[in-house]
Amino acid sequence: MMLVLNGPNLNRLGTREPGVYGSGTLAELEELCRRWGAELGTEVQCRQSNHEGQLMDWIQQAEAEGFRGIVLNPGAFTHYSYAIRDAVAGQPLPVVEVHISHVDAREEFRRVSVIAPVCRGKLSGFGFLGYRLALEVLVAGG
Amino acid sequence: MMLVLNGPNLNRLGTREPGVYGSGTLAELEELCRRWGAELGTEVQCRQSNHEGQLMDWIQQAEAEGFRGIVLNPGAFTHYSYAIRDAVAGQPLPVVEVHISHVDAREEFRRVSVIAPVCRGKLSGFGFLGYRLALEVLVAGG
Amino acid sequence: MMLVLNGPNLNRLGTREPGVYGSGTLAELEELCRRWGAELGTEVQCRQSNHEGQLMDWIQQAEAEGFRGIVLNPGAFTHYSYAIRDAVAGQPLPVVEVHISHVDAREEFRRVSVIAPVCRGKLSGFGFLGYRLALEVLVAGG
Amino acid sequence: MMLVLNGPNLNRLGTREPGVYGSGTLAELEELCRRWGAELGTEVQCRQSNHEGQLMDWIQQAEAEGFRGIVLNPGAFTHYSYAIRDAVAGQPLPVVEVHISHVDAREEFRRVSVIAPVCRGKLSGFGFLGYRLALEVLVAGG
Amino acid sequence: MMLVLNGPNLNRLGTREPGVYGSGTLAELEELCRRWGAELGTEVQCRQSNHEGQLMDWIQQAEAEGFRGIVLNPGAFTHYSYAIRDAVAGQPLPVVEVHISHVDAREEFRRVSVIAPVCRGKLSGFGFLGYRLALEVLVAGG
Amino acid sequence: MMLVLNGPNLNRLGTREPGVYGSGTLAELEELCRRWGAELGTEVQCRQSNHEGQLMDWIQQAEAEGFRGIVLNPGAFTHYSYAIRDAVAGQPLPVVEVHISHVDAREEFRRVSVIAPVCRGKLSGFGFLGYRLALEVLVAGG
Amino acid sequence: MMLVLNGPNLNRLGTREPGVYGSGTLAELEELCRRWGAELGTEVQCRQSNHEGQLMDWIQQAEAEGFRGIVLNPGAFTHYSYAIRDAVAGQPLPVVEVHISHVDAREEFRRVSVIAPVCRGKLSGFGFLGYRLALEVLVAGG
Amino acid sequence: MMLVLNGPNLNRLGTREPGVYGSGTLAELEELCRRWGAELGTEVQCRQSNHEGQLMDWIQQAEAEGFRGIVLNPGAFTHYSYAIRDAVAGQPLPVVEVHISHVDAREEFRRVSVIAPVCRGKLSGFGFLGYRLALEVLVAGG
Amino acid sequence: MMLVLNGPNLNRLGTREPGVYGSGTLAELEELCRRWGAELGTEVQCRQSNHEGQLMDWIQQAEAEGFRGIVLNPGAFTHYSYAIRDAVAGQPLPVVEVHISHVDAREEFRRVSVIAPVCRGKLSGFGFLGYRLALEVLVAGG
Amino acid sequence: MMLVLNGPNLNRLGTREPGVYGSGTLAELEELCRRWGAELGTEVQCRQSNHEGQLMDWIQQAEAEGFRGIVLNPGAFTHYSYAIRDAVAGQPLPVVEVHISHVDAREEFRRVSVIAPVCRGKLSGFGFLGYRLALEVLVAGG
Amino acid sequence: MMLVLNGPNLNRLGTREPGVYGSGTLAELEELCRRWGAELGTEVQCRQSNHEGQLMDWIQQAEAEGFRGIVLNPGAFTHYSYAIRDAVAGQPLPVVEVHISHVDAREEFRRVSVIAPVCRGKLSGFGFLGYRLALEVLVAGG
Amino acid sequence: MMLVLNGPNLNRLGTREPGVYGSGTLAELEELCRRWGAELGTEVQCRQSNHEGQLMDWIQQAEAEGFRGIVLNPGAFTHYSYAIRDAVAGQPLPVVEVHISHVDAREEFRRVSVIAPVCRGKLSGFGFLGYRLALEVLVAGG
Repeated sequence: MMLVLNGPNLNRLGTREPGVYGSGTLAELEELCRRWGAELGTEVQCRQSNHEGQLMDWIQQAEAEGFRGIVLNPGAFTHYSYAIRDAVAGQPLPVVEVHISHVDAREEFRRVSVIAPVCRGKLSGFGFLGYRLALEVLVAGG
Repeated sequence: MMLVLNGPNLNRLGTREPGVYGSGTLAELEELCRRWGAELGTEVQCRQSNHEGQLMDWIQQAEAEGFRGIVLNPGAFTHYSYAIRDAVAGQPLPVVEVHISHVDAREEFRRVSVIAPVCRGKLSGFGFLGYRLALEVLVAGG
Repeated sequence: MMLVLNGPNLNRLGTREPGVYGSGTLAELEELCRRWGAELGTEVQCRQSNHEGQLMDWIQQAEAEGFRGIVLNPGAFTHYSYAIRDAVAGQPLPVVEVHISHVDAREEFRRVSVIAPVCRGKLSGFGFLGYRLALEVLVAGG
Repeated sequence: MMLVLNGPNLNRLGTREPGVYGSGTLAELEELCRRWGAELGTEVQCRQSNHEGQLMDWIQQAEAEGFRGIVLNPGAFTHYSYAIRDAVAGQPLPVVEVHISHVDAREEFRRVSVIAPVCRGKLSGFGFLGYRLALEVLVAGG
Repeated sequence: MMLVLNGPNLNRLGTREPGVYGSGTLAELEELCRRWGAELGTEVQCRQSNHEGQLMDWIQQAEAEGFRGIVLNPGAFTHYSYAIRDAVAGQPLPVVEVHISHVDAREEFRRVSVIAPVCRGKLSGFGFLGYRLALEVLVAGG
Repeated sequence: MMLVLNGPNLNRLGTREPGVYGSGTLAELEELCRRWGAELGTEVQCRQSNHEGQLMDWIQQAEAEGFRGIVLNPGAFTHYSYAIRDAVAGQPLPVVEVHISHVDAREEFRRVSVIAPVCRGKLSGFGFLGYRLALEVLVAGG
Repeated sequence: MMLVLNGPNLNRLGTREPGVYGSGTLAELEELCRRWGAELGTEVQCRQSNHEGQLMDWIQQAEAEGFRGIVLNPGAFTHYSYAIRDAVAGQPLPVVEVHISHVDAREEFRRVSVIAPVCRGKLSGFGFLGYRLALEVLVAGG
Repeated sequence: MMLVLNGPNLNRLGTREPGVYGSGTLAELEELCRRWGAELGTEVQCRQSNHEGQLMDWIQQAEAEGFRGIVLNPGAFTHYSYAIRDAVAGQPLPVVEVHISHVDAREEFRRVSVIAPVCRGKLSGFGFLGYRLALEVLVAGG
Repeated sequence: MMLVLNGPNLNRLGTREPGVYGSGTLAELEELCRRWGAELGTEVQCRQSNHEGQLMDWIQQAEAEGFRGIVLNPGAFTHYSYAIRDAVAGQPLPVVEVHISHVDAREEFRRVSVIAPVCRGKLSGFGFLGYRLALEVLVAGG
Repeated sequence: MMLVLNGPNLNRLGTREPGVYGSGTLAELEELCRRWGAELGTEVQCRQSNHEGQLMDWIQQAEAEGFRGIVLNPGAFTHYSYAIRDAVAGQPLPVVEVHISHVDAREEFRRVSVIAPVCRGKLSGFGFLGYRLALEVLVAGG
Repeated sequence: MMLVLNGPNLNRLGTREPGVYGSGTLAELEELCRRWGAELGTEVQCRQSNHEGQLMDWIQQAEAEGFRGIVLNPGAFTHYSYAIRDAVAGQPLPVVEVHISHVDAREEFRRVSVIAPVCRGKLSGFGFLGYRLALEVLVAGG
Repeated sequence: MMLVLNGPNLNRLGTREPGVYGSGTLAELEELCRRWGAELGTEVQCRQSNHEGQLMDWIQQAEAEGFRGIVLNPGAFTHYSYAIRDAVAGQPLPVVEVHISHVDAREEFRRVSVIAPVCRGKLSGFGFLGYRLALEVLVAGG
């Protein structure tokens, strides 16, 4: 069972800067993730929050809840949340960092990820497809 | 209808460093904002939170709640909350950034606003009066 | 009586990059300032110069000339003229810094104001309306 | 009566990177704090949260709740939460900053504390014992 | 038809720092890529060079040779070869940047990619599997 | 008709550091420019000032005075005068930046040109000949 | 006899980002250079390579091959090839650095030339015409 | 047996900037340390020097002299003496770094400790009491 | 004959921040300089301007006017006027830089002098007396 | 009675880099200082040491020894000895910083003085004469 | 058997800046290296290339060719070739970095070696003799 | 006659971090140096001190004591002692800088040598053998 976590403002997908993030909604993305999970033989649960503390709580509890890996799109927390970094580092599951847009090709501040060094790997720029690739990684053994 | 959002520690106005922020309380500021709104012919609602996620939720929902503009004092989130920045960028209402004290004349870290580039404009140093000026801007068409 | 000082290149308003600064001319802006002054019960005089030294002379003499406050748009001098900074610091009138465009949302060099720390407050991004707001601040007691 | 506040991820003590943070749990730490308080003649209350806003709320209300001092381990918020810094600065109780590991001997980013300048003092590297020392400071008059 | 380009030192896979890059050889990686291509319904050609100019030549000619996309692991050129960056920018095929190890979790200099801003997206940290994911992206339409 | 503008200290040519700037005088340079203009079929006017504001005035008025292009040697203003930069950006004529010495081969501070980004192009290191080349560019259509 | 050297990606002129580099091809540019040489009374040879080492070889041998000066467009090597810098510094011919686009008006990294300090002078922003101007400089005696 | 080492200018305690360091003298501090040692069941010796080399000598010899731990206030050497850092790193006793004033709340240069990374832990801001806390740490087993 | 040049805002001496610059006026300072000149056997002329260009003109012409040395207080131009720097470098008289307040003990930006490297020497922090010392230097042979 | 302190390597005056420091010896300089003191009506004592700790000891004891002011040439300690800085700050006598060569016109590292902010003022570039000027300042009342 | 590798521009020894690199030629240096090898009881082969990729190829193959150690003068690649760095790191032979001139005493950019951290040690400033010393190190067991 | 100077903490060789510095003692190193000197036909004297001033005294007096060259391992003073740098620069003997460990491959601060620019050359990473190589250089004529 895999956990897909979406961070701040990703509940606005489809509405928020569609030129950057595409026109699909969060509901559609989550539906895709569950379907891809099924294809890959694993159950997928999806959650979203604008609250840094809430994301940390979920990351901390994921193993106890029975998850085997986490797909994490930390949104803007990517660039400054050392707290989420520590939450990831302090639990044993493999975490794959995903970004819908190609953050390394945007503003300077988006090129810094304080979370990357404690993740299993990172994907950026592939739209919703990135989540599928991340699930493949986790299913393949992280 | 305009939304006035006050961020972290602004609930302590009057008590917190009165030499910097003045002796008026948040209740008094909010009362003034509502009265100024009435003078300018618009209803004003005021909210305050210490929680970054809460502020983001309000910003995201403002348009759907019927607001036409937002006066935002992000408090210390000004200096690092890229999440709030993205929340502002991801919705269509004009947002005016306000600071009670003159942040550009204080510590180095207060001179950086990660939120400014996505706002309509910025005011700092005018005490409570800054909120009235911000309302004037929004009423004048943002 | 209030003094409105416009710095370098503001004599080109209406012609200069209208996408950034709007299509109103300096003459129209000055006329608006005088009218706003009348509405607020104060006389307003307007001056413009491309010469740093001339701006300093005016700032130094403003109190002796009977002015009670200064609205200052330092143009590009904002970013490097420590001389104007010292001129502002060395006289007793309240000075409000105004920018027509939202300088914090433009090139990196425009985000630095060496003058801000000695001003009463700062406004940016509100077009000509910013001058009116600055006058309101000064009339309200600076 | 003293307040012991533990920030993000400290609820994971014992589990999280035991090589760095030791094998004692948060419950054990809190029990020790209460016992040390008793030895020093003061009641001790302990709270933990992963939520920045919650920590701020507790800091703001501590004086009104009857506390006389705060032992604060801000966890990763140490390195970027200007909001918590302002919460500490905006209330009158002495606050002692504590870190279990020796943050100055770890990654570069952990050597920066944006909160230190508004605290009474700082301790790092002494494991759980650091909390006792912090309580001694507060009992000795802060 | 897709082109897989491996840059400097990747001919040493299996021998070179196996703790970082794994024990598979370049020949094995290339065989995998061809097989994955077959699974995905596209022919895959693989090339490797230690020579920056050679890599540029291949990138420039790829479209004319009939390729539809490029999987590029620029090796250490990632961090300074503006020449390869320009070669990528100056041709029309989608290019996906791949790194076997998680470069964002290693030395500071490896966290900078001068090539990323002109690529379609970036993957790092997934070992050989990353190449398959990159092929999936290209086959899905880049 | 072309305008050749020389900035601060260029009136000292021939006297000032001849090892760096050569032994020709400003009068000789201006005579050459006029002669080169004649050869290229355009009238050339030459002006020099140590006053930043004066240079700005001339740049602003050049189009109205009938000039079709400007050769600008901003002297030391090159390195800090954002005001001249804005003057250049705010008028429609093509401006070619010229330096007699090779500024990129001298002190660090001379390698920065705040004016270059708004000019048509830049020449440095060719002595007086650089002015002729700049005129060729303007005559060729800027 | 003059040598015109074009560095990486300049073989793609006409195809590569024509909005930046124009629609002329390398063959056309080289034809122009030869014709301009004839007009200026000097033979011109043109070479291009994507290979840093090849460019160095040509620079080192130019004097022995009978050339009297070099027009060098180092392309992206401009920004990091200290090796080409040393090749230029280690031979006696005058070298003029040319850029088709105005590199000082583009991305930050393009504003640094590690080669400039050892060249005779630099030209940027004048399209193909810049090569003619560079030839004029060399014919005039470097 | 514990060694208390005070570095440069600490012989001036009581006289030197009493607003920062308090009015107690070095003799009084040393008397307190000996008394606290007695309370904690360990002998304490105290030494002070303005000479970097002397401090290094003492640190190097401490183990051979029979000490079990060192309380070190390096004074201003904290900020630049890599030599003392190496002396600490090159001997086996636990060293606790102590500062009377809260160095992290003072000038920027005082926030850097080149010695901290090789110490057991650090205390700052607690006046003379800090020495007692440091002794407690050492007695508790370093 | 010696020239004493005072730069921007020094005409405000006595009025401007007397806590920093003292209560003596510019007229008094100039009278002192002339008297000190007489004591040292040299005539002294004093000039002041807020205009950078005017100061440059005076510096350029000083030798031709018969002066043998210059005492220069560049005021805030100290920190950015490379144009004045070049004016000093481009003429043969010895120039002594003087500051009334101790600029190295004030704000960070005041610690940088772009003019110092081309002056004979620098004095700061001695009030009006600094001008006398500077005259002594020049009379002693510069 | 005034104290003249010379720091490291100044015992080598006359021998050490005479092109920079002149050909006079330390003995000659000290003799001059004593003579100048006599002219100014004060006794002068001179000391030199290469030992940072020795210089600190002398500074700390100067007042008790009956001195009324200190002329300090800290030599290379100027650039990093925060310990000497604290020694100066921790005693009540006025201290004037002197440098024989013009340190602001030499290598970058010599332009930083960590000692300047706690001195009365600074002189550099005037050779031995600088010591006389410093004595004049102290005799005039510091 | 030892391999001596000389990088870019070292084929120009004797001709290239002899004031910096001496008047000996590459052929003479290589002859010396072979002779020194003979004296030290090891065969020495020498190669030079201006091509980064060629140098990498040689480094990668050295062990398989039977070499026991490498003397590497990377020339200007020292300062930016992370590719060569990785080639060195990815093979098992000891590599000694040699520079003929004293790179730490020249331009700032020459003080950075991106290759040093993966070499056995580094020598600079000893002319051709440095190669002999490097061979001694390798013969002594690297 | 050659002087071998070892700086701070080198008296601890064999004891101090043997993984980094080896297990040989200072006495053994000095014995080796004397023996190597004998082999090379020169007398060698060895001294060590933790005191920066003492090292400077020795460097200053070396020529007068009859030495012909200095082998200097400045230990941690390498990274900040501009005073030792000036002592080296101010005397005529050739000085060779030696480091036992490979300082360029360790912490960032160890990669900076403020002393290197005034030495004849530098060796690092060769253990005790480095001292022999340094002696060879000096005997070969420095």
